[in-house]
Amino acid sequence: MTDIREHDAHVADTRDSRANGEGTSVVARPEQAPTAPADDVPALLDHGRTLCTPVLREAVARLAAPMDAVSAYHFGWTDAQGNPTNADSGKAVRPALALLSARAAGAPASVGVPGGVAVELVHNFSLLHDDLMDRDETRRHRATVWTVFGPAQAILVGDAMFALANEILLEAPGHGTTTAVDAGRAVHRVTVATRKLIDGQAQDLSFEHRDRVGVEECLEMEGNKTGALLAVSASIGAVLAGMDDKGADALERYGYHLGLAFQAVDDLLGIWGDTEVTGKPNFGDLRARKKSLPVCAALAEDNKASRRLAELLADPEGRGDEDEEQLAVRAALIEEAGGRAWTAEEARRQHKTALAALDEVAMPSSVRAQFAALAEFVVVRER
Amino acid sequence: MTDIREHDAHVADTRDSRANGEGTSVVARPEQAPTAPADDVPALLDHGRTLCTPVLREAVARLAAPMDAVSAYHFGWTDAQGNPTNADSGKAVRPALALLSARAAGAPASVGVPGGVAVELVHNFSLLHDDLMDRDETRRHRATVWTVFGPAQAILVGDAMFALANEILLEAPGHGTTTAVDAGRAVHRVTVATRKLIDGQAQDLSFEHRDRVGVEECLEMEGNKTGALLAVSASIGAVLAGMDDKGADALERYGYHLGLAFQAVDDLLGIWGDTEVTGKPNFGDLRARKKSLPVCAALAEDNKASRRLAELLADPEGRGDEDEEQLAVRAALIEEAGGRAWTAEEARRQHKTALAALDEVAMPSSVRAQFAALAEFVVVRER
Repeated sequence: MTDIREHDAHVADTRDSRANGEGTSVVARPEQAPTAPADDVPALLDHGRTLCTPVLREAVARLAAPMDAVSAYHFGWTDAQGNPTNADSGKAVRPALALLSARAAGAPASVGVPGGVAVELVHNFSLLHDDLMDRDETRRHRATVWTVFGPAQAILVGDAMFALANEILLEAPGHGTTTAVDAGRAVHRVTVATRKLIDGQAQDLSFEHRDRVGVEECLEMEGNKTGALLAVSASIGAVLAGMDDKGADALERYGYHLGLAFQAVDDLLGIWGDTEVTGKPNFGDLRARKKSLPVCAALAEDNKASRRLAELLADPEGRGDEDEEQLAVRAALIEEAGGRAWTAEEARRQHKTALAALDEVAMPSSVRAQFAALAEFVVVRER
Repeated sequence: MTDIREHDAHVADTRDSRANGEGTSVVARPEQAPTAPADDVPALLDHGRTLCTPVLREAVARLAAPMDAVSAYHFGWTDAQGNPTNADSGKAVRPALALLSARAAGAPASVGVPGGVAVELVHNFSLLHDDLMDRDETRRHRATVWTVFGPAQAILVGDAMFALANEILLEAPGHGTTTAVDAGRAVHRVTVATRKLIDGQAQDLSFEHRDRVGVEECLEMEGNKTGALLAVSASIGAVLAGMDDKGADALERYGYHLGLAFQAVDDLLGIWGDTEVTGKPNFGDLRARKKSLPVCAALAEDNKASRRLAELLADPEGRGDEDEEQLAVRAALIEEAGGRAWTAEEARRQHKTALAALDEVAMPSSVRAQFAALAEFVVVRER
């Protein structure tokens, strides 16, 4: 599962030569660089995958046919015909956070495994459903499940993954040192996060029908859609290891702000990312009329570019049929209005807040350094 | 919520004057009639609705717009424009079972309320998704959510109801006498049942692409799709009230076989039910090429009618475009082959097995009589 993906995890300035001839990075390296060496992150992500993937595979194998096969395709373990492959399964940031959080509580990383598997299942349940709702045809350089197996399978397999997530957590007391009460606490946190994630998707969908969305509304939506699940990812291993709610809440705050930083970068990549690297279509978010952070921030400015952008977005003419050139004009206007710079700065602000939350929890310094390295990885990436 | 629905709950022989000129009932009254007076059932269902609906409404009100409004439409509380209505919310058998099961454990019915709300939410989550997957345009005499609000809302609101179900259960220890451990046990049972329900839907969908499905396979699918959630409905109140697993398992067996009886009747109504009463389209199951129990049982026979039916089902000509007359021919062949009689007999067998499971649990005799009355209601109904 880990052989072809080292290149994904490198931590380096992200250069975008397509939309920005000057080659500035999407997000510059934060001023307060973490102390852990940057090359720790691929090992950290690999470790998460190595421990969690067998349990994830065993969980998915429980599903009735053809849901097991559809899941294996979605996770990149097989192609559409069922032949084994080693395709992209995603960055696996969430399982890595879950294992780290177990170690933050002084437990072995393995105690966090049911948590890592659960959050990865919830994340992928949301991807399966969101891709269908958004009619996205590609993810991780491959055709999305609903385009290959039909909408019904995308719905059903998503539902099954959501149920499996709870099942795996509730079985934790049978295998490890986790108590039934702590497993229940973990399920509660995952449930609340999943509800927020669904609220966030509802808000995101409703934004597409509006000409203008405030920056605060957009941040609330992104906090729900991305922050909540990363928050619980960063606390769930600790909860399974018996950490009290005060500590777990602080870890959640780290994960929540990490999520907002992550999403700000995602929004930049959704407009200015290199489609070859991201695996997502060119100007995908603009084509879908997503009111992502750069768009909302641009519209919040009062300048010539923002007014022109508002006119274009309000114009019902050619709605949804914009060609590449028209989308490039919009991307340029967003940048000119200041939306790109504001979003990059917001990513840095959220990154800083995430690091501050870490300081509220006592944990081994090596674990703290790895949390910090993961945070930098999330902010400085090109996919 | 209860004013216009008393007629739904009557327990009487079900006559089908459309597909069967002789006016025989879909399922004759079981030989072993329960001791409770039949007119208890409407009161039982009303009681379940009265206690559970306010909590259900409060839960749904937590959802971000427009999911709260979509849910209110789905439950029949509002019309598509959001005006209050008192439309059909379903029979509410599951909440009634949940409250009864709390009483079986010697607790007040109110202890079962979070359980009743949770199973009702899971049931309606599955309806929202199944209607979309099956492209069903009507439910309970009204347009289905996906036809009114679009597929994305049907997916999203279903997801939200699933998450809410767990949320409500996990909050139970905060309000009533339920302990955190018992709430965790309840969530575990609901999770396992939901996974089975999803497996059952996957099997059901896969059957549509096959010409022939064995009776045993069909019963396994129906046990997953319908039996599992009715099983947990009949035990969840008891679990929340602290009943041990042995007693809860026996209550689940009652609910499971009740579910199989329920589904056998549903399959009969899906072909021979009066569309005016069921709110479902004429010959709906045949049009969708559902391999329901009467179809599987008919094909399992070796006679002239079953062979002719097999030919028609295997013929790719006009697949999915059959007119009312062609569907009526198939319905007649199923009956002639023996599929209708076998299914009615199977409903009686499952009903008997359900009652036998009740005898394994000590409970107040009035509760036992009401469980029995509910079982009869399920078997002898016309919608």
